[in-house]
Amino acid sequence: MTEAEARGRAAAMLADAGIALTPAEREQIEVADFGLGQLAEIGLQLVTYVNTERVCAKELVLFPGQTCPEHRHPPVDGSPGKEETFRCRTGTVHLHVEDRDELVLQAGDQATIPPDTLHWFQAGRDGAIVSEFSTRSRDEHDVFTDPRIVR
Amino acid sequence: MTEAEARGRAAAMLADAGIALTPAEREQIEVADFGLGQLAEIGLQLVTYVNTERVCAKELVLFPGQTCPEHRHPPVDGSPGKEETFRCRTGTVHLHVEDRDELVLQAGDQATIPPDTLHWFQAGRDGAIVSEFSTRSRDEHDVFTDPRIVR
Repeated sequence: MTEAEARGRAAAMLADAGIALTPAEREQIEVADFGLGQLAEIGLQLVTYVNTERVCAKELVLFPGQTCPEHRHPPVDGSPGKEETFRCRTGTVHLHVEDRDELVLQAGDQATIPPDTLHWFQAGRDGAIVSEFSTRSRDEHDVFTDPRIVR
Repeated sequence: MTEAEARGRAAAMLADAGIALTPAEREQIEVADFGLGQLAEIGLQLVTYVNTERVCAKELVLFPGQTCPEHRHPPVDGSPGKEETFRCRTGTVHLHVEDRDELVLQAGDQATIPPDTLHWFQAGRDGAIVSEFSTRSRDEHDVFTDPRIVR
């Protein structure tokens, strides 16, 4: 799957879910393959609505079975690190958070991940759309468990 | 319109928009009439997904022509005050922000309101659903221009 194909497929999933994007947002959907070249299996599609010094909000789109690999958001510049709430909008997402049992989130379910806490997640067989509400995103500071990953 | 009627109507609008709520969230939709007893004209329905020390996310539901009256979020306890991004999901919302021209937000449009800045908003004739992404909400500190208002 190419990046352009992933972008088109994510846009179609968002449209099917009734989530309105501007044309510019649709064209700029971020496709992350984490440098592994296995996008269909390990990857994530993102629409960032806002990312200020204090607040960030995104839609995350996952294809069936697609995984966002294990990582954490460490403290940066005296801030305690990114705090994230994931709210499942459509489909199913299997969320794994350090020292907790797997959470299975379906539409309307949510979970909050404290700063600097390892987590990874995988969509179920229909894929998933997940809203992320968080403090500022600074992806370049994320720490991934797999040393091959480049964000 | 009673509070229960407003809650039912807001739940129906959210369902029509494909926004999934848990049964508990549906039953706990907040109905704010700001103490004025004119809910259909001046009021707001809210679902608060998360409100931590750092991050808050809500859905705001406005009936046709309904207005959320002018207010600001002042600094509290050394924090600069609440910063809000409003993203219109369905319908139309007319947003008035201190010293700016009126913004007309339709599905997919958004605007960020800095801390301690006067603002008010009114839905168009089809009502509106607006996602709010913000820093912590502390409604009891909000300052309304109309001195009759109790939040």
